[in-house]
Amino acid sequence: MTNQQRVVIIGGGFGGLHAATSLRHADVNVTLIDRRNFHLFQPLLYQVATGALSPANIAAPLRDILKRQKNTEVLLAEVVDFDVDKHEVILTDERVPYDTLILAAGVRHAYFGNDQWETVAPGLKTVEDATEIRRRVLLAFEAAERETDPDEIRKWLTFVVVGGGATGVELAGALGEIANHTLKNNFRRIDPASARVILLEGTDRVLPPYPTDLSARAAESLRKLGVTVRTNAIVTDIQTDHVTIRSGEQTETIDAYTVLWGAGVQGSPLGRRLATATGAELDRAGRIIVQPDLSLPNHPEIFVIGDLANYAHQTGKPLPGVAQVAMQSGKYVARVIQARLKGQTLPPFHYRDLGNMATIGRAAAVADLGRLHFSGLIGWLMWLFIHLLYIVQYQSRLLVFIQWGWNYFTRNRAARLITGEHILPTITEKESTLV
Amino acid sequence: MTNQQRVVIIGGGFGGLHAATSLRHADVNVTLIDRRNFHLFQPLLYQVATGALSPANIAAPLRDILKRQKNTEVLLAEVVDFDVDKHEVILTDERVPYDTLILAAGVRHAYFGNDQWETVAPGLKTVEDATEIRRRVLLAFEAAERETDPDEIRKWLTFVVVGGGATGVELAGALGEIANHTLKNNFRRIDPASARVILLEGTDRVLPPYPTDLSARAAESLRKLGVTVRTNAIVTDIQTDHVTIRSGEQTETIDAYTVLWGAGVQGSPLGRRLATATGAELDRAGRIIVQPDLSLPNHPEIFVIGDLANYAHQTGKPLPGVAQVAMQSGKYVARVIQARLKGQTLPPFHYRDLGNMATIGRAAAVADLGRLHFSGLIGWLMWLFIHLLYIVQYQSRLLVFIQWGWNYFTRNRAARLITGEHILPTITEKESTLV
Repeated sequence: MTNQQRVVIIGGGFGGLHAATSLRHADVNVTLIDRRNFHLFQPLLYQVATGALSPANIAAPLRDILKRQKNTEVLLAEVVDFDVDKHEVILTDERVPYDTLILAAGVRHAYFGNDQWETVAPGLKTVEDATEIRRRVLLAFEAAERETDPDEIRKWLTFVVVGGGATGVELAGALGEIANHTLKNNFRRIDPASARVILLEGTDRVLPPYPTDLSARAAESLRKLGVTVRTNAIVTDIQTDHVTIRSGEQTETIDAYTVLWGAGVQGSPLGRRLATATGAELDRAGRIIVQPDLSLPNHPEIFVIGDLANYAHQTGKPLPGVAQVAMQSGKYVARVIQARLKGQTLPPFHYRDLGNMATIGRAAAVADLGRLHFSGLIGWLMWLFIHLLYIVQYQSRLLVFIQWGWNYFTRNRAARLITGEHILPTITEKESTLV
Repeated sequence: MTNQQRVVIIGGGFGGLHAATSLRHADVNVTLIDRRNFHLFQPLLYQVATGALSPANIAAPLRDILKRQKNTEVLLAEVVDFDVDKHEVILTDERVPYDTLILAAGVRHAYFGNDQWETVAPGLKTVEDATEIRRRVLLAFEAAERETDPDEIRKWLTFVVVGGGATGVELAGALGEIANHTLKNNFRRIDPASARVILLEGTDRVLPPYPTDLSARAAESLRKLGVTVRTNAIVTDIQTDHVTIRSGEQTETIDAYTVLWGAGVQGSPLGRRLATATGAELDRAGRIIVQPDLSLPNHPEIFVIGDLANYAHQTGKPLPGVAQVAMQSGKYVARVIQARLKGQTLPPFHYRDLGNMATIGRAAAVADLGRLHFSGLIGWLMWLFIHLLYIVQYQSRLLVFIQWGWNYFTRNRAARLITGEHILPTITEKESTLV
């Protein structure tokens, strides 16, 4: 180890990875720590959950991305705590010293105090989440095919998606596609098109952060795919075979064996650890409130970026937890570090909003580019173009493009494999697999 | 259900699937039962185990393959036994009646009475086996990177493959590729090229069923990839951190944390069930000895095909457990069934040997086409061509071809994701994850 400054980055998502690559020419030693060996293109995770892409299509080994970056090493390890006085990151079996620390540990899904819902209503954050959702959805159709009781068949063929944000909308749209098109002719006893996909949103429209006209277009696209959109519907309970919702004064029960969660996130537990160690403040979602330069109060050597940071300084409210914010904050911190090496300071972090996009089913999307709003096929083509542009670090970009083209024209979802532990739907097994 | 004859096929591998598709124009009702929802192109499973392909690249949903075949239904279910007097297949929760039964349940790997080796030396038969092997191999490099003790590093960087048949040769070749090429520049503390890959074969040459000249060429190709080939080496014990072999009079221990099993197979337990129910004879490997028309003695309505059948009548010894035998036997039985409907009989099953191929690393293979022997790049191109030809049912054939082309030119193994339960290598975890 030379006398160079040691920059330790925790998390290889969009924020951490862009911080690392932006330091490639800096006179520092970079250590990127992640407990997974790959970077995941999370915006496409719902396509794995719905059998259109394989995990490897949207993941790239971190070591591979960074292999030519000589000043950087990758550590596959779990961070458990911080010793901010000694300037050390504490792993399960080792301590890693730093001069500058960048925490980019992200968020996980949250059940608003109802953690028992997690087993019955899986969220979508990891590759394992995606293959688990894929397994449950496919097994539900299989169980329906083998069932004779019409009530049971109906429960197996009802899919409830909780949360009308981008994840929920994309999941529901893809489920509509699967039921109405992908599985056509696949079964002999049931008609997959008779499946009901119900999207529950607590506010008065889907995609709340989007302009109202795009929310309306998204809802319309979902309806065309056979998705029932229920707004102003608050989930009050989730059990293995039903969801209870409150809609105004009314309480209602929806019978369903498959419930998917896209409703909320909270900061990684590492955020709380770091807040405790540094005295920094957490918001209600467990995100760390950062200074205008993304460092922590009294700890200019510690930065928090990506979804885990609450950047209230710019707009008075937190920035959205999207890839663009993470990437821009990662690049900004890399520039701050390099400026400091030269004794310079930079103006505060300023997020440049390039717009938001969500896709609905096979060939529709909504895109909010500030004054310009797009929807339908045009929105989808823009979505496709931009996603291909940003998947640029992936050597497999061309392959993903070809796979998409293929999927588009053939309605292919060949990746609908049921893998893992519970690969068989026996009707009696219902309780044990779903709880 | 009409009065048509009910043909029940158990197993959606090469044998069962080809029996089903060959019955597509027959005046029968076909039910294909499998406990997995996909057909697997098993000859390429080692490419999943070594990170070159994703499971979905070599699997296709059975329902999708058969969706236009109106006389056929697919049942995702587990067969537990047979009631041959009542002509019923017994599932975990249901009985399925048949007029004709075709058992194509295949084989699983066998440890020759040392079942405790299974946890330390996984075999390669299922998608889960493949991702488990991928996980172990990748984690071994990660653990070596984090280790400081040179002896421990050496154990992590030693990979032992037991069995010099096609599976063992292909696995060892791919591991050689990974160590010497794929992981180049990926690590900062270890040199992946210093890894040792040791292939153990009990007889005097690798690929024993092949002509001797091709065995020699395969061994030479393996050596070029840095693989140490040990012939006449009998494995007498496997522990979490070493393998004991006997070579002539000598006993030797090889220290290694990663041991992969490609040494032997035995018939599915369903074979034993059916033999007990029908009085049919099993060979030592648990395969059912069939009559010249692949039916069972005293049970002309029951056929056994594929790897699970022992067809001693043609050559006096069992046919090899390869896809060609399974496909041809499946097609033959479909023809027998159709002939019987017309009151005709067919000559005994005759296997037409189209040759054997095994690939070694990126661009070498051996092909035994009777009088013609090929090796090296030419062998590999033939291997590529034939495999693409036979992956024909897969809608993703073109995609797999493009993926291969891409992998070939870029030495890409982007599918090297560590997924599943144990995603972190802590040196202390060694015992618990490997046992």
